[in-house]
Amino acid sequence: MKVTCHYADRAQRGPEVAVQLSREDGDGTRDWWSARVHMPTRRLRYQFEVVAADGTHTWFSERGFERAASRHHIGYFHYPYNQPADRFVLPSWLPGTTFYEIFPERFNNGDPTNDPPGTEPWGGRPKPRSFFGGDLAGIRQKLGHLTALGVGGLWLTPVFSAPTNHKYDPSDYYTVDPAFGTNEDLKALVAECHAGGIRVVLDGVFNHSGSEWFAFRDVREKGEASPYKTWFFDIKSFPVDLRRVNYETFADRLPNHPKLNTADPGCAAYFLGVGEHWIREADTDGWRLDVANEVDHRFWRAFRERVKAAKPDAYIVGEIWHDGAQWLEGDEFDSVMHYPWRDAALRFLSGDLAPSAFASATVGLRHAYQLAANPGLMHILGSHDTARVRTEIGGSAARAAQAAALLLTAGGVPLVYQGDEIGMEGGEEPDSRRCMIWDEARWDRRILHTYRALVRARRERPWLAWGSFEDAVVDDDRGLYAYRRAESGPLAVLYGEGLGQLWVAVNVGERRSEVAIPLGNRAPRAVVDLLSGEGVGVEHGAARLTLAPGDAVVLV
Amino acid sequence: MKVTCHYADRAQRGPEVAVQLSREDGDGTRDWWSARVHMPTRRLRYQFEVVAADGTHTWFSERGFERAASRHHIGYFHYPYNQPADRFVLPSWLPGTTFYEIFPERFNNGDPTNDPPGTEPWGGRPKPRSFFGGDLAGIRQKLGHLTALGVGGLWLTPVFSAPTNHKYDPSDYYTVDPAFGTNEDLKALVAECHAGGIRVVLDGVFNHSGSEWFAFRDVREKGEASPYKTWFFDIKSFPVDLRRVNYETFADRLPNHPKLNTADPGCAAYFLGVGEHWIREADTDGWRLDVANEVDHRFWRAFRERVKAAKPDAYIVGEIWHDGAQWLEGDEFDSVMHYPWRDAALRFLSGDLAPSAFASATVGLRHAYQLAANPGLMHILGSHDTARVRTEIGGSAARAAQAAALLLTAGGVPLVYQGDEIGMEGGEEPDSRRCMIWDEARWDRRILHTYRALVRARRERPWLAWGSFEDAVVDDDRGLYAYRRAESGPLAVLYGEGLGQLWVAVNVGERRSEVAIPLGNRAPRAVVDLLSGEGVGVEHGAARLTLAPGDAVVLV
Repeated sequence: MKVTCHYADRAQRGPEVAVQLSREDGDGTRDWWSARVHMPTRRLRYQFEVVAADGTHTWFSERGFERAASRHHIGYFHYPYNQPADRFVLPSWLPGTTFYEIFPERFNNGDPTNDPPGTEPWGGRPKPRSFFGGDLAGIRQKLGHLTALGVGGLWLTPVFSAPTNHKYDPSDYYTVDPAFGTNEDLKALVAECHAGGIRVVLDGVFNHSGSEWFAFRDVREKGEASPYKTWFFDIKSFPVDLRRVNYETFADRLPNHPKLNTADPGCAAYFLGVGEHWIREADTDGWRLDVANEVDHRFWRAFRERVKAAKPDAYIVGEIWHDGAQWLEGDEFDSVMHYPWRDAALRFLSGDLAPSAFASATVGLRHAYQLAANPGLMHILGSHDTARVRTEIGGSAARAAQAAALLLTAGGVPLVYQGDEIGMEGGEEPDSRRCMIWDEARWDRRILHTYRALVRARRERPWLAWGSFEDAVVDDDRGLYAYRRAESGPLAVLYGEGLGQLWVAVNVGERRSEVAIPLGNRAPRAVVDLLSGEGVGVEHGAARLTLAPGDAVVLV
Repeated sequence: MKVTCHYADRAQRGPEVAVQLSREDGDGTRDWWSARVHMPTRRLRYQFEVVAADGTHTWFSERGFERAASRHHIGYFHYPYNQPADRFVLPSWLPGTTFYEIFPERFNNGDPTNDPPGTEPWGGRPKPRSFFGGDLAGIRQKLGHLTALGVGGLWLTPVFSAPTNHKYDPSDYYTVDPAFGTNEDLKALVAECHAGGIRVVLDGVFNHSGSEWFAFRDVREKGEASPYKTWFFDIKSFPVDLRRVNYETFADRLPNHPKLNTADPGCAAYFLGVGEHWIREADTDGWRLDVANEVDHRFWRAFRERVKAAKPDAYIVGEIWHDGAQWLEGDEFDSVMHYPWRDAALRFLSGDLAPSAFASATVGLRHAYQLAANPGLMHILGSHDTARVRTEIGGSAARAAQAAALLLTAGGVPLVYQGDEIGMEGGEEPDSRRCMIWDEARWDRRILHTYRALVRARRERPWLAWGSFEDAVVDDDRGLYAYRRAESGPLAVLYGEGLGQLWVAVNVGERRSEVAIPLGNRAPRAVVDLLSGEGVGVEHGAARLTLAPGDAVVLV
C-alpha cells in the first residue's frame, strides 16, 4: 500500500505538495502512518491518496473514502491555523527527570516530638488508622538517599492538616499538619531539595475536602444559612448528617470526604488561591491533582492559568486511572499518572500478556494522546493506592528489577513509589503503606542497583523521555522481548535529533534463552550492559547473549 | 452480532448492570450502536461484550479487544463524573427557529441620505467594490417579509464602520457604519425584531481587523513604539508596509485584514469587551464568529464566558467550513456553520452523490459531534461566501425548492441566505451578493411557498431540530430518497418524547417515478403533503405517490 498526503495552504488555490507517508507503528488492529510536512504558511488543508497493491486508488478526506480527490477546500482535512497559544508545551526540565513518590507518614520519622497520639513503633503492620510518626523532618534527613538514587522530582502525598494518616481529608489547606511539621519546615524542605537539584510537587485535594474543614463545619453548624453551602456538591437536605451522608462525597459515600462544587465561583476562587499560594509561598514546582477526573474542566483550565502565571514551568499531573485525552489538550494538565501503562506492564510481567500483546498495548498507548504530551506522561508501576509492583508480579526480586528496567527505559517521566527501589513488598492498602525500611541490611541490593543505574542513565539521556521506540525481538514462545530507544523520531522536531540509542531486553519466560538482538543500521561494534557493566558480544550487527528468567539487560 | 454493555458505579465493587445495545445507524464503513443506561450514581465504568454470530465472545474496553472481561476498574471505559458544569447546553429557544442571513449592503436601501459616494442604482451587477446603499433602515422596512417567511433569527453580516461593502475589515468595532445608519438605528432594529419574535445575531470579526482600525493605524504611525504592536500577529519588521505586507493577514496576504493576536492580554481584553458590549448595549442575541477556526481556543473560551454572563441564552456560532468538533465541546461555541452538510446536500442534488451515498454522508455527520450539539448546528445551503444554491445545482426552480425541503427538514437550525427564498441566482462572489429583488413579480412563487410552508411547519415542530432520522426509501437507480423524522430518539431524554412525525421524499433522478414510502409502525391512515396541501393515499402502511424529477413532498 502506498499512502500520499497532498497538502497546501488553505487560503491558496495554488498547486499542492505531495509527501509519501510511511507506516510507523501497528498494534494488530490499527496502523499508524506518518510523514513530516513543511508548512509554507500557518494554514493547512490536506487529503490522502491511497494506492492499494492492486493499483486501485482511493482518496481519504473529511468526506471519508472516495474514488475522487477533493478539488475545492471543502472536503479536505484542515489544520486551520498554527496558533502558538494552542500548542501543548511541557516544562523543559522534564526530560531526564525521574520522580519519587513520598507518603510522608510512612517515609521517615525525623522528629518524634511531633508524633500524634497513639503513634506506633516504626515498622509495624499498618492498619487503616495507624500512625507511625513520619514527617517533613524525616524527609529532610533522608535527602541523601534520594540524591544517591538520582531522582529529580518529589511528589509528596498531602502534607496539610487532616485527621487521617493519608491526609486526603484536608481540614486546612493553608497549614502543614502539625504531625508533619510546620509551614516553615515545608519551605525549608523545598529549598533544600532545590539546592540538591530536586523539584517538589505537592498533592492537591480539590475534588473533596475533609469533614473538619472550616467551610464544611460551617455548613454542618448553620445548615442552609451557611454562605458555604454552595461550595459543596449536591447537598440533598439540611442539616447535613455524617451518618446518613445526605451529601455527595468522594467514592462510595465516605462521610469525611464531602465533594466540593468547584463550579461555584466562591469555591473555585478559594482553591485557585490555594493552587497559587504554595507555589509562591514555598516555591513548590507544581501539583499532582487528586481525583482529577471528577472535577469540572472549567476549574482545571482556570487552575492551569493561575499556576502557570505563578511559575511558568510548574508541572501539573492529574490522577487519572483511565484514558486521559480530555485533560491533555494543552489547556488543563501537563500530564496524567499513566495507570494504563502500568496495567499493560504488570500483565506482561505476570505472564498475562505475551510479548507481542505487550508490544501492541504500548504502541496503542504511545498513540493515545497528542505526541507532544508523551514526554510528560508519568509512568508508574504502582503508588500508595495500589499493591506494590513486587507483590503484584509474584514477589521475585529478579522480576521486580526487571519491572524497574521497563519503567526506567519507557518514555515520559518515571515515578518510583517510596520503597520500591529497595524491593519492599506490600499488598492492597493499607499493606502498600508499610513504613519505609531504613535498615540497609534488609534492602535488596540488586533491585536498588537497577534503580540507581537506570535513574542515572536516564539523567544522562534525557531523550529517553521523548525518543523513538522500536521492537527488536518479540518472541512469545520463549517470553523474550527487546526494544530499541533512540534519540530520534517525530518529537526530534521539538527536542533535537541526536545519536543516542540503547537496547533493552527482558526474559519474562520460564527458561534460560539465548537471544540475538538486531542493533539496526547504526549498530555499534561493541555494547555494554548498563546493569551488569559487562560487555556483550556483537556479531553480524546483533548483540548475542543469554537471559535467565527474570533477567533484564540495558545495552549501550 | 449481539453487543452488551456491562456497567457499574466506578467506586463500587458490586454487581454490574447489563444492557443490550442496538444498531442505530451505519454508513457502510462504520456502524453506530447505542443503549440508554441509568446511572445509579454520577460515576460510570463500562465495557462491552460482543458475541458474534458463531458464538465467539470478545470484550471491548480501553484495553482494546480482548478474550476476557476486565475485572478491576482498570481496563474499563470510564465516564468519570456527571459534572453539570461540563455539559453541552444549548439556548432553549433554538428548536423551531429558522435563521436568515442578511448582507446589509445588498438587502434594502431604506435611507438614500446615508448612501456612500458612488452608490450605484439598486439591482446592478455587483463588482468587488460596488456600493448599492443597503442599510439598517432598509432592514426595518422589510421586517414584514421576514415575518411572513416566519424566521425567528437574523444573522447580520458586519454592520460596524469599515471601508468595504462587506465590512469584514472593521475600522471601528463600537460604531455602526454611517452608510448603514447609527448605533441608535441598530438598537431600534433589534428592539423591533424582538417585538416580532425575531432574535438578532451580529457578525464578530475578531480574527483580523481592518487596516484603518485605530490600533493598526497607531502601529503604522509609531512602529515599534506603538503600544498596540503586540495586538497584531507576527509583524515581521517595522514599519509595517501595506504594499509589502510584512505582517500576518487573513487569507492570502490581504493587506487590509491584519491578523489580530488574541493571545495578547490587552488585545483579548479589548475584544472580549466588544463581545459583551453589543449584547448589553443593543440587546443582541449572540454572535456569528468570522474565521473562527484561526483564532486561539483560549480566547474563545473566555469569549463564551463573557457573552454568556451578559446573556445566558445568547447563541454563539463559529464560521468553520470543516469538522468543528474542537469547538463544540461545550466550552467554546454553541454551533458551527454546517458547511459539510451543505457539501453533501449540493452533491446529492447535483447528482454527484447517489441517494445511498447521501444517506451515508449525513449519517456520518449526525455522529460527528456529541449528540447534544446537533440541535444547534446551523445547516446551510449557501451564504454570501458561496455561489447560491440554485445556481450551484443548475438553476432549476424545482431543484431549488427541493433543496429548501432538505434544508428545512434537516436537524439543527436552518439558515436561509437572503434571496434564496425567492429563487435568486448568483455565482461565486461578488455575483452571490446581488441586490435583493423586491419586485414581487420577479419572485419564484413555488420556491417562496416551499420556504414559507416549511419554516412555519418547523416552528410548529421544534422537534425537527433534535428528533430522530430514519431512511425510508433509498433508491439509487431511480434517484429516489425518502426519510422519516420523528419526535423521538436519543435526545428525547433532554427535550421530551412526543408523537410528532413526518416524511420527506425527493426525486433527484431524471424520470417520473412511483414511490411507496413505508410509514413505519405508527403509520397514520392518511397523510397530507405540506407543500401541495394534497392528500396522499396510504395503502398497507405506505404512502403511494408519483414524483416528477425535482419534486419534493413533506408528508404529515
